[in-house]
Amino acid sequence: MSDVHTPYAVQVEPILRRALDEDLGVAGDLTSGAVVPADARARGLLVARRAGRVAGLDIALRVFGLLDPSIRVQVENGDGSDVAAGTTLALVEGPARPILTGERTVLNLLTRMSGIATGTRAVVATVADYPTRVACTRKTTPGLRVLEKYAVRVGGGTNHRFGLNDGVLIKDNHIVAAGGIAAAVRRARDQLGHMVKLEVEVDTLDQLEQLLGLAADAVLLDNMDAGLLRQAVDMVAGRLVTEASGNLSLDTVRDAAAAGVDLVSLGGLTHSAAHLDIGLDFETA
Amino acid sequence: MSDVHTPYAVQVEPILRRALDEDLGVAGDLTSGAVVPADARARGLLVARRAGRVAGLDIALRVFGLLDPSIRVQVENGDGSDVAAGTTLALVEGPARPILTGERTVLNLLTRMSGIATGTRAVVATVADYPTRVACTRKTTPGLRVLEKYAVRVGGGTNHRFGLNDGVLIKDNHIVAAGGIAAAVRRARDQLGHMVKLEVEVDTLDQLEQLLGLAADAVLLDNMDAGLLRQAVDMVAGRLVTEASGNLSLDTVRDAAAAGVDLVSLGGLTHSAAHLDIGLDFETA
Amino acid sequence: MSDVHTPYAVQVEPILRRALDEDLGVAGDLTSGAVVPADARARGLLVARRAGRVAGLDIALRVFGLLDPSIRVQVENGDGSDVAAGTTLALVEGPARPILTGERTVLNLLTRMSGIATGTRAVVATVADYPTRVACTRKTTPGLRVLEKYAVRVGGGTNHRFGLNDGVLIKDNHIVAAGGIAAAVRRARDQLGHMVKLEVEVDTLDQLEQLLGLAADAVLLDNMDAGLLRQAVDMVAGRLVTEASGNLSLDTVRDAAAAGVDLVSLGGLTHSAAHLDIGLDFETA
Amino acid sequence: MSDVHTPYAVQVEPILRRALDEDLGVAGDLTSGAVVPADARARGLLVARRAGRVAGLDIALRVFGLLDPSIRVQVENGDGSDVAAGTTLALVEGPARPILTGERTVLNLLTRMSGIATGTRAVVATVADYPTRVACTRKTTPGLRVLEKYAVRVGGGTNHRFGLNDGVLIKDNHIVAAGGIAAAVRRARDQLGHMVKLEVEVDTLDQLEQLLGLAADAVLLDNMDAGLLRQAVDMVAGRLVTEASGNLSLDTVRDAAAAGVDLVSLGGLTHSAAHLDIGLDFETA
Amino acid sequence: MSDVHTPYAVQVEPILRRALDEDLGVAGDLTSGAVVPADARARGLLVARRAGRVAGLDIALRVFGLLDPSIRVQVENGDGSDVAAGTTLALVEGPARPILTGERTVLNLLTRMSGIATGTRAVVATVADYPTRVACTRKTTPGLRVLEKYAVRVGGGTNHRFGLNDGVLIKDNHIVAAGGIAAAVRRARDQLGHMVKLEVEVDTLDQLEQLLGLAADAVLLDNMDAGLLRQAVDMVAGRLVTEASGNLSLDTVRDAAAAGVDLVSLGGLTHSAAHLDIGLDFETA
Amino acid sequence: MSDVHTPYAVQVEPILRRALDEDLGVAGDLTSGAVVPADARARGLLVARRAGRVAGLDIALRVFGLLDPSIRVQVENGDGSDVAAGTTLALVEGPARPILTGERTVLNLLTRMSGIATGTRAVVATVADYPTRVACTRKTTPGLRVLEKYAVRVGGGTNHRFGLNDGVLIKDNHIVAAGGIAAAVRRARDQLGHMVKLEVEVDTLDQLEQLLGLAADAVLLDNMDAGLLRQAVDMVAGRLVTEASGNLSLDTVRDAAAAGVDLVSLGGLTHSAAHLDIGLDFETA
Repeated sequence: MSDVHTPYAVQVEPILRRALDEDLGVAGDLTSGAVVPADARARGLLVARRAGRVAGLDIALRVFGLLDPSIRVQVENGDGSDVAAGTTLALVEGPARPILTGERTVLNLLTRMSGIATGTRAVVATVADYPTRVACTRKTTPGLRVLEKYAVRVGGGTNHRFGLNDGVLIKDNHIVAAGGIAAAVRRARDQLGHMVKLEVEVDTLDQLEQLLGLAADAVLLDNMDAGLLRQAVDMVAGRLVTEASGNLSLDTVRDAAAAGVDLVSLGGLTHSAAHLDIGLDFETA
Repeated sequence: MSDVHTPYAVQVEPILRRALDEDLGVAGDLTSGAVVPADARARGLLVARRAGRVAGLDIALRVFGLLDPSIRVQVENGDGSDVAAGTTLALVEGPARPILTGERTVLNLLTRMSGIATGTRAVVATVADYPTRVACTRKTTPGLRVLEKYAVRVGGGTNHRFGLNDGVLIKDNHIVAAGGIAAAVRRARDQLGHMVKLEVEVDTLDQLEQLLGLAADAVLLDNMDAGLLRQAVDMVAGRLVTEASGNLSLDTVRDAAAAGVDLVSLGGLTHSAAHLDIGLDFETA
Repeated sequence: MSDVHTPYAVQVEPILRRALDEDLGVAGDLTSGAVVPADARARGLLVARRAGRVAGLDIALRVFGLLDPSIRVQVENGDGSDVAAGTTLALVEGPARPILTGERTVLNLLTRMSGIATGTRAVVATVADYPTRVACTRKTTPGLRVLEKYAVRVGGGTNHRFGLNDGVLIKDNHIVAAGGIAAAVRRARDQLGHMVKLEVEVDTLDQLEQLLGLAADAVLLDNMDAGLLRQAVDMVAGRLVTEASGNLSLDTVRDAAAAGVDLVSLGGLTHSAAHLDIGLDFETA
Repeated sequence: MSDVHTPYAVQVEPILRRALDEDLGVAGDLTSGAVVPADARARGLLVARRAGRVAGLDIALRVFGLLDPSIRVQVENGDGSDVAAGTTLALVEGPARPILTGERTVLNLLTRMSGIATGTRAVVATVADYPTRVACTRKTTPGLRVLEKYAVRVGGGTNHRFGLNDGVLIKDNHIVAAGGIAAAVRRARDQLGHMVKLEVEVDTLDQLEQLLGLAADAVLLDNMDAGLLRQAVDMVAGRLVTEASGNLSLDTVRDAAAAGVDLVSLGGLTHSAAHLDIGLDFETA
Repeated sequence: MSDVHTPYAVQVEPILRRALDEDLGVAGDLTSGAVVPADARARGLLVARRAGRVAGLDIALRVFGLLDPSIRVQVENGDGSDVAAGTTLALVEGPARPILTGERTVLNLLTRMSGIATGTRAVVATVADYPTRVACTRKTTPGLRVLEKYAVRVGGGTNHRFGLNDGVLIKDNHIVAAGGIAAAVRRARDQLGHMVKLEVEVDTLDQLEQLLGLAADAVLLDNMDAGLLRQAVDMVAGRLVTEASGNLSLDTVRDAAAAGVDLVSLGGLTHSAAHLDIGLDFETA
Repeated sequence: MSDVHTPYAVQVEPILRRALDEDLGVAGDLTSGAVVPADARARGLLVARRAGRVAGLDIALRVFGLLDPSIRVQVENGDGSDVAAGTTLALVEGPARPILTGERTVLNLLTRMSGIATGTRAVVATVADYPTRVACTRKTTPGLRVLEKYAVRVGGGTNHRFGLNDGVLIKDNHIVAAGGIAAAVRRARDQLGHMVKLEVEVDTLDQLEQLLGLAADAVLLDNMDAGLLRQAVDMVAGRLVTEASGNLSLDTVRDAAAAGVDLVSLGGLTHSAAHLDIGLDFETA
């Protein structure tokens, strides 16, 4: 895990501040403000209620620091850990009010990111016998892409494009608008800088045939079954990076890998991830 | 649907702008900028690929207007519609580049919100024989609560608290920090304004017994099976609003409703919602 | 005071930053930049020039920390203190330039908040013989509601709604738009979650009569004199929380309390508060 | 009035958006969302409940446009008008929900600004027999200075410095930190650009004597009674702009003007302004 | 020009708003507010005072729209035009105050962007006999990269990386930190997605030799004279994109191109660009 | 240097954050994230590659602290130092990744600001035999005015207006819109506060003659050659501050000073500044 590239605090703090703002509004935390004495202290454990892979722990714990710098946290099982149900991820200690105020925001971040990492890990494990890499897409939650892309990396996946701004992927609608694959690729090569890679989506082997004569770096094989994928990989013969995509699931992804593609990409890693259940348990004194 | 309370543009525009910013960065849309002629025009249909309930269509379509006010949209099946796979939700027409640039951001918003509405509708349908209402929780995606709470309403659900700021819910950790249920409720009543309702979470019938002598408005019955819920409802005898919560699913929610609780609340409506697959299809000229 | 619910730094820092930005602009503090040597140090006292109740001291002093973390402050008489003219509230010590730069912003915040607390305390004292609580309204300064609601609490008052988002108050214009009190209350009950309280404004005893048959939690008795208020309280007979409002002043509020209402609410606590005069005095070396 | 310099929309819109955000939060306007049918329309009048001078009407009405561009407004008595109680300031017409949602924010802005203009006008009228100008100070509400300075202008007053950034005012604490008046003025003249004016605060005639030999443009005569002011004006003999300041009120300001000072400045124009009562009355259909 | 990829309004508006905010502050435009009657109208021409290539005209003119939507503009010679001194670029017509208020902000944007385009065009012309492309770098003005990268494109240049986020460029300091070129490239290939290109900076032919056995896409030949560049191009023999960089100027860039590199990149296109002098001339009535 | 008025961190941090955001986007620093081990440490020197005057060092180094508070910096030759090529300005030590990530942003700020200071110093040196001061203008880079005005001060220059908000400068277009110089000055004096200075731009000695009878504080002599300037200075005879402006350069500025004007102002100090080349050199272990 130490090599996974993690976002900087400057990238995530605005997300954390907005999340707190959303939950506090003008009135703040009515419950802990009214119910908990100002000088009460608390000690709690962040505990996984289900097995999974942890992601986002350091990031989520920053929420406590934004509320009260005197809150102390100690990470027991950090990002990248595969934990069993009941495992303690971290200890939290300090004034009780701000810990209670931050609890839900911390958990909303942590359970979402860990859910994505856990789901990604499952797909990665499914194709572990093959050199195929598992990639996510741009189908992320608006405003949280930096967190979700990172969670996929923690889960062992790789990141496709991070945005419209860091790679060219010519899809069906672009081809319509450009008047054909050949025109689209030619225009792209003329316009783009030398640091930009170019991938083209094809739906059929005919389209693939056409693409092979053009200057692309990669091909996205959209919605093809394992048989078609195998034919496509044979046709490409290593001249392009091959990516299978389109409604892949845990059930079908292994066949795609077996067909020899370099990558499988799944929007569902982010757009339909279930959270990983994690809770905060206060110790009674 | 005309009576569902919808967020104002001033509430959602910052979310849309951040989503575009995240996708465009400094470089912008490399693909359409390179591939599509500046004067190309396009006409496309937003089409549901699966059956479900539409939510967030007007909100998501605002993205196109932020990119280019000359893009025209026409809603065919708007928020609250139950559509079959293949149904057209809206038409989009205008310059091709900004339509392609906005496509993914529009879809990320729309498929998430429609996924939540569709999932909520399913739960609501399951308990339709009972007067029980279906509520979501604060387990929403950080930064998107205004959208997700609205999607639940479109799905026929009701909203529990919107944040820490609009109601008191005394949970287990608060009780620990306050030194018992009685102390917690007493402090709350002393401090709070007359417009604030007070709900208390209990895990056992003993705790419930204790609560009944105190000045609460509602009780959250946490993680109780149908038998316990029935006993709890009997004990309460209408003196408190009763809410069942804790790992409820499509399978168990009907039993909870049959036990007579006023509400069931499910974090999964928002924290583990699958998206509803929707695509944008360009018409070929 | 230790039990008054105080806003978090994350809630108030944007207000402090905007206040500094407004005063500094691009050129910054021309006077201290030109007149005071960069290495000059200063020690000053925040001193009340008039008697009153202190509110916002910790919040306002954060301004100094935003300008220079090396400035040291020591609170002598903090929020909730009732001080005589001439009392020292806090000591400030550090580099002279940033102390001078922050002086006015600190004072603008502190004198406004203390003014509100002082005014609220006066009203609370006036009705001290009665169980009546003193509430503020939404007639606060745009952008400063979190500070002003807190100052009212420090003054011994209670907060009515914090915004449109945390309670329902059906006023005359809503009744016009909904087509009558009965329709309005019925619609509200159908739509609202179980954590939302419902108050209705009435101008006459006839309207009150009509309301008593409906499912409201509280009634706002608008612009009634003491005699009418007494009749209204009798009619309600404990079935609703009763609130007197509308042009109440120090002169009339005691009569309203004597009439038996549960609350009196005064927009003037915030919309027409006079500041409490407080100054910063540098010690000469 | 047409010559008063008014702020641009780009300067005030962030204030309006923050005010709405503060009132709407995540949940939005629960009352009108629940009570008022989505298609209900309304027509209302903004009516002065007390006599005064209108300020901020165009600015405040922009709030309606931010909520719903289809709301129509028509100004009857705009900024600078002196109106009697009962006068209609503007008509508002459109969908009922957003009008009700914006009502309080519009009024909070308008009543505050009109209150300041009304109070300023009263002071200006008091000194109308003299050439003395009436100025406000930097004792404004944090975040609203642009609005409050404008309201003073509408009231017939003039603006002193807008911030630390547009003029030099050497006050008592600066003199302490700089080691005397002479040192302070000399340093200022060395450092400052040719477009910056320099004013010095003096408490005694001795200090004034000392100042007269230095290169200042104006003198602030702090907390001097009418007799001292007269002596000071005589000593200055037109060599400096003279400003009287310090706890001036409606009672004392005329004497100060009679003493011959060029300006009187009053923090209370902004820091202790009472609002001008204005309401929105819906027409019944 | 119609094919140059232009930024969207959503990308540039925050820059324009900050520029106005910086110039207006709280006090606004004192001069036009005081000097120009509120109802005065004006008509002016944006005129090039020197010959050059226009860039940023549409973007800069948006400033007027932010101040007053009733200002009308008409572009005569837009982005990409090569104009002689004295050429009119656009006409502006409307209320005089906001035109005067926006004048400097419009010109600051336009003259900077046109200066960059003009400088880039000069370099492009110098190497026009060769297929070599002219690229800018990340040495842009903080906060304005989106504008400056666009201006380079308008000048006929190409964009290198837009940020740290859209390509890998391993430079000398990275090689030190990674422990050698081989280790650096190997780590990069392991970690990076398939859409990311990898370029390595080398200072010597020995380093280049070492690089040729590794999996890079491009090489940056740093600070090499024409002789070394020629040798390097021979060694590479088309296996990598070749880029010459490091203190290139109008004098030396042609030799670098003649040496056969694919690209020359110059930080000076942006970090030391002179503005193109353009003015706004009011017509006298 | 210790007396130059420096901006506060609260004024510059938003600029630094935007610069990082622009460079990092969502994906972050792909190169150092992939190439550099997470635990690698580095030590580097900021070294001037050309002789010049340093400006912005403390400000730029804050970038490292925003990325990682554990990075240590030590300033060797700070703001105001005149350094030879090869001089070390500062040492940087800490984790290698964030140092590499911040490198370009630090340098973009520092080389720009030092370039401005260096250019300003050159002009100041040219007129050193005369009492004439050297001023910059409002022709600054949008969004960076606070930094550029400061860099001019570090270079020994003085600041003219900081914005439209802190002084009145009546230029040709204002005179057209106001209907003549006399009308413009009269309106200005009527409207403006006592802390505002008034300067008028004249193109001819006739205009100057006209101005001398009016209540201005300063005159901007636009585009006059040395002979005309001398005549103008004679005509003014000390009654106004005199400023020469308009296409002044290192070649012509000495003649202007010799003509006796109080100030020369040059837009080129900021709008066409070349950067000062500075680099970061990692030490090899």
